[in-house]
Amino acid sequence: MNEASHHVVVVGAGFGGLEFTRALAGQPVRITMIDRRNHHLFQPLLYQVATTSLATSEIAWPIRHLLRKRKDVTTLLANVVGVERGARRVLFEDGGGIGYDTLVLATGARHAYFGHAEWEPFAPGLKTLEDATTIRRQVLLAFERAEREDDPVARQALLTLAIIGGGPTGVELAGTIAELAHETLHGEFRNIDTRQTRVILIEAGDRILPNFAPELSHYAKRALERLGVTVELGQAVTRCDAEGVVFGDRRLPTRTILWAAGVAASPVAEWLGAPADRAGRVVVEPDLTVPGSPEIFVIGDTAHVERPDKRPVPGVAPAAKQQGRHVAATLKARLAGDSERRPFRYRHDGDLATIGKRAAVIDFGWTRLTGWPAWWLWGIAHIYFLIGFRNRLAVSLSWLWIYATGQRSARLITQGDDDSEDGG
Amino acid sequence: MNEASHHVVVVGAGFGGLEFTRALAGQPVRITMIDRRNHHLFQPLLYQVATTSLATSEIAWPIRHLLRKRKDVTTLLANVVGVERGARRVLFEDGGGIGYDTLVLATGARHAYFGHAEWEPFAPGLKTLEDATTIRRQVLLAFERAEREDDPVARQALLTLAIIGGGPTGVELAGTIAELAHETLHGEFRNIDTRQTRVILIEAGDRILPNFAPELSHYAKRALERLGVTVELGQAVTRCDAEGVVFGDRRLPTRTILWAAGVAASPVAEWLGAPADRAGRVVVEPDLTVPGSPEIFVIGDTAHVERPDKRPVPGVAPAAKQQGRHVAATLKARLAGDSERRPFRYRHDGDLATIGKRAAVIDFGWTRLTGWPAWWLWGIAHIYFLIGFRNRLAVSLSWLWIYATGQRSARLITQGDDDSEDGG
Repeated sequence: MNEASHHVVVVGAGFGGLEFTRALAGQPVRITMIDRRNHHLFQPLLYQVATTSLATSEIAWPIRHLLRKRKDVTTLLANVVGVERGARRVLFEDGGGIGYDTLVLATGARHAYFGHAEWEPFAPGLKTLEDATTIRRQVLLAFERAEREDDPVARQALLTLAIIGGGPTGVELAGTIAELAHETLHGEFRNIDTRQTRVILIEAGDRILPNFAPELSHYAKRALERLGVTVELGQAVTRCDAEGVVFGDRRLPTRTILWAAGVAASPVAEWLGAPADRAGRVVVEPDLTVPGSPEIFVIGDTAHVERPDKRPVPGVAPAAKQQGRHVAATLKARLAGDSERRPFRYRHDGDLATIGKRAAVIDFGWTRLTGWPAWWLWGIAHIYFLIGFRNRLAVSLSWLWIYATGQRSARLITQGDDDSEDGG
Repeated sequence: MNEASHHVVVVGAGFGGLEFTRALAGQPVRITMIDRRNHHLFQPLLYQVATTSLATSEIAWPIRHLLRKRKDVTTLLANVVGVERGARRVLFEDGGGIGYDTLVLATGARHAYFGHAEWEPFAPGLKTLEDATTIRRQVLLAFERAEREDDPVARQALLTLAIIGGGPTGVELAGTIAELAHETLHGEFRNIDTRQTRVILIEAGDRILPNFAPELSHYAKRALERLGVTVELGQAVTRCDAEGVVFGDRRLPTRTILWAAGVAASPVAEWLGAPADRAGRVVVEPDLTVPGSPEIFVIGDTAHVERPDKRPVPGVAPAAKQQGRHVAATLKARLAGDSERRPFRYRHDGDLATIGKRAAVIDFGWTRLTGWPAWWLWGIAHIYFLIGFRNRLAVSLSWLWIYATGQRSARLITQGDDDSEDGG
């Protein structure tokens, strides 16, 4: 459909890959967008699927639908497992492959367990739609099982939920789960009182939301405590198993542990044989290219790039989008014959986290917001950034409904009561 | 919470079980509602989840939420595997059980393969949310794989979808899949033209929609053909495998076969040691009790009861609801000391089926409707019957969106590209 000879391959249709593709519109290139999923996922709202506020289709959108008007883009569903740098080919799991002139790797990150992969079955993390529905099922099943449990000790363990990691995801999970237990589900059970549910947020550092100003960390802690969350600081988790979690010198009996403590980059560094940091991210050149391969760019959560003060650029959606735009600008310049290697400069817009449905904290650096003004600004900003008008409308209605009634729309347990993964 | 001594156990929160429970409000009984799922499913719209028009949470609702105001009802998530008639106990899969004074079994039906269980992996049926998301994934993956397939013969097999069974479910699946291929997905692929997709509806009888008046069957066939569906009549399927489907003397190469041809009752007859018909339904007394156990009622798709003209009552939602109300009335009378055994009488309101988003057929018996008036009446009736105001609003918006734009909201492939079941 397109006779352009320069072939750009993009792997990963997250925020970075999609923004790069958009910014490259109108250039004399053929683009192939490859993802192992058929949908772009709005990850910042994933915790709302995990906690029954939103349905999966409200935060995910088919990639080829997003790119349908771009006749220069071919979308492929394929699982990339390697790169041949010499032959300039990307390799697929099912044996095929595709050649490139320019390659943009934007494959993101998964949650990681700091060398304790054996914790994963007991403490699921939150990165994909399947992760979210797995957590949703486990949380809802804990209450269902408690309703049928006669032994008070076992019942208390079922009505105890531990969240590990005090970053934005952990704070958001803890706040919404506390609301789910204490408000949404209240009055629907006959043998248990869901208001007795204990929600415990465990953070190894000395405050939650460590990237925020200390006063916002303290505000968030108090706001969580008002929702009934117990915040445990300064205690690292040393064990997760079917009976509970061990942190500091305590064992907490619980049947539901959620992991929001760490991420590891996708294995791009291995594909390339490129240098990586401790989290597995490729240490790229200042212009986001791979050392020795100026035709390969790595962006987003799987790239390690530093700010002038040597702090790494954080793994957040705005950083990935800025990098996508930077690489598109670099490639445009190259196609026009300008090979200057301009360094990427990150602009930090601020940090946001919500605490339940009535409070949030926003740290812009130059100013800070808390309480319901922060919550409404957060809500408006997220709806604005959601891709596709219909999702904006659907999410707005879902939130208004929850806000007005306390009821949630997506309280489905699918896949019976086994523990295999499913979508929801 | 409730001191009433008479304990009513209801197994199954489908249309029959839920209607019975509602009709029994205010009676001096304790009710326990048991289901192996946490949600009531609006099955008549399940094909719309399978074909990406609706999200799972738009047609399913937590049972305990529906019954939250009924303090006389305890909802339990449990998988019933047997009944001890003598001891008057229901047995759970995980070893527990619960006693009853009156038992109402409303456990529904599954799809069945007429003794060919080996066809199931190749021809999934449609009864649960997981079935719907399995079909959705298979249909969407067929197009994704076709986009990457170079061999024209293999590509044509991927772009051929066969639906087996010309009842309402088969007709509705065929019509919406044809619209999905020919309209919704058109323009989003670069290597295939989705308008070349072949959708084939295979029916062993001599007309589709055999329960409708012949003129409506013919109208529906023409309406499907206008949408690009090929209708094959009078040819029984003799084989389904990974390469395709054999019917009559033809082998049709296809990678996607959907089963809408037969159902079998849940194993209630085995639990009870009661007489069953060929589909496994319990042959109940005219008052819907089990022979020899007047305290056990069987209703809905798992009961066999005849009309005065000896035709069986059909396995449709209105029949299940009428039976639920009848059993509630019988039990109320018994509690008041009236033990007369009134026979159930089925009132047939009509048959409906949609063909895509612009036509439907409705057979009221005394009059018939086709085309867009039937479609709108169908849509209004279904929205009216949906449980819960929010779902009505959400479904209305989803349909208006599809009607206005041809776009669909729930085009998610979850769970990678393997074939395990998931929810969506």
